[in-house]
Amino acid sequence: MQGVEASKKNSHLFFSFLLLLSFHLTLSLANKKAISKDQPCKHMVLYLHDIIFNGTNVANATSAQIAGSKPPLGDFFFGKFVVFNDLITGDHHLLSPAIARAQGFFFYNMKTDYNAWFAYTLVFNSTEYKGTINIMGADLIMMETRDLSVVGGTGDFFMTRGIATLRTDTFENIDYFRLKMDIKLYECY
Amino acid sequence: MQGVEASKKNSHLFFSFLLLLSFHLTLSLANKKAISKDQPCKHMVLYLHDIIFNGTNVANATSAQIAGSKPPLGDFFFGKFVVFNDLITGDHHLLSPAIARAQGFFFYNMKTDYNAWFAYTLVFNSTEYKGTINIMGADLIMMETRDLSVVGGTGDFFMTRGIATLRTDTFENIDYFRLKMDIKLYECY
Amino acid sequence: MQGVEASKKNSHLFFSFLLLLSFHLTLSLANKKAISKDQPCKHMVLYLHDIIFNGTNVANATSAQIAGSKPPLGDFFFGKFVVFNDLITGDHHLLSPAIARAQGFFFYNMKTDYNAWFAYTLVFNSTEYKGTINIMGADLIMMETRDLSVVGGTGDFFMTRGIATLRTDTFENIDYFRLKMDIKLYECY
Repeated sequence: MQGVEASKKNSHLFFSFLLLLSFHLTLSLANKKAISKDQPCKHMVLYLHDIIFNGTNVANATSAQIAGSKPPLGDFFFGKFVVFNDLITGDHHLLSPAIARAQGFFFYNMKTDYNAWFAYTLVFNSTEYKGTINIMGADLIMMETRDLSVVGGTGDFFMTRGIATLRTDTFENIDYFRLKMDIKLYECY
Repeated sequence: MQGVEASKKNSHLFFSFLLLLSFHLTLSLANKKAISKDQPCKHMVLYLHDIIFNGTNVANATSAQIAGSKPPLGDFFFGKFVVFNDLITGDHHLLSPAIARAQGFFFYNMKTDYNAWFAYTLVFNSTEYKGTINIMGADLIMMETRDLSVVGGTGDFFMTRGIATLRTDTFENIDYFRLKMDIKLYECY
Repeated sequence: MQGVEASKKNSHLFFSFLLLLSFHLTLSLANKKAISKDQPCKHMVLYLHDIIFNGTNVANATSAQIAGSKPPLGDFFFGKFVVFNDLITGDHHLLSPAIARAQGFFFYNMKTDYNAWFAYTLVFNSTEYKGTINIMGADLIMMETRDLSVVGGTGDFFMTRGIATLRTDTFENIDYFRLKMDIKLYECY
């Protein structure tokens, strides 16, 4: 009988341990939803090409200024507001196949340096993806990289959330710029 | 003693099974938050009525253009920017009781077809609901239906997320359009 | 043997109870993510100072009107659109140390009263916080307090969500207003 009691106590201890572990996992996962910065559930690298309308390049232009501050506030386009429908490619070549469009707007908002604010939707309509990703946030142009929020998604990106990291890939004259977008999604359904 | 040991082993197996099931449920629910496209926690059908200000209809107008591209980029109002405070009803009659307002903006953003981008807040202040729902995303007008993201909410819609599916219910001249909005919320608190 | 069986049954009942409790906690936490309006995971009180550009105050101005409705729709600035890069302080003194910037825009959108819509990013770059908080929603100015949605965050505010409650702290002439922002975050990682 001693042996039976002892093994019963041991197994009870073992079960108690498992239960505590279960509680602990339950609580930590439910509160934190198991999100780790290093482990997105999806990762994409995209390039955004913006060709600003200068009055004559109707065929090529993908964006147009629609408003601004008059008189100007500072020397860095404070208030210049641009609507865009930009080409998205998988590498940095403008003539690579389009894998999405970026539809939205940005405006400059600093007196002392170039600094912008973006809100836009990535519209995918390819064999690989159908759906949209919605993004907004500050584009602190003077920083090498800057993070915007992925605030929602639809279709293949149903209810997603995450981070879009922007990097200026090139800025040619005033007519063309290219952004590298590193998109990490942390909620996938 | 044999019988006791056997029944103890059986019940241990049973407990182990329950524990594994518990772990499994814990993990799947915590990661996926039990969201299913077919089972929103709230579903509403609303109609948005937009009456554009033409310079003379001050009494009826609910929206006004505030900016645009000059010269024009294409023939589909690229860059035309409209601020609105639109009536929301529960059916498609303009004179039905208002159950909310939609406050926000949209702008056109395509050279080759009508295509828009929206961000707005549904403001409820009725006996049924008090609070707001915040929505943004691309309105791909050429599609029969298009999905925008519900990115947040307040009051009775505290912290909500979901999908707002738009359908053009009518488009009369340039002065009036009506959108059917199918709102499915998947996070309710 | 009777006693052993009885104590075994009791401990089995006890374990079953624990397991049920575990299931219950698991399900309720995973579905609701344990969010309570009264228990944000972070709480901040901030003051936003907006100094509107009047054409001459270039040195002090932090915002500028960039568009509006012409002719006007009503008497309450319907459509007036303002881009800002406003100072954020920890108390209501304009000359207190800046603890962040608020970069974004607002516009008025009502014919019969002052009413606005905001979207902006709080940009923190101090020893205490580095990162951004993204906010959007209706600013129902006639209400004493009004709630906007915190829809995302980056850096120290990675993936956050919550509520930003605005209160008009002062409105001096047309040149300066100050908002008290009570920010409650309910998702912290």
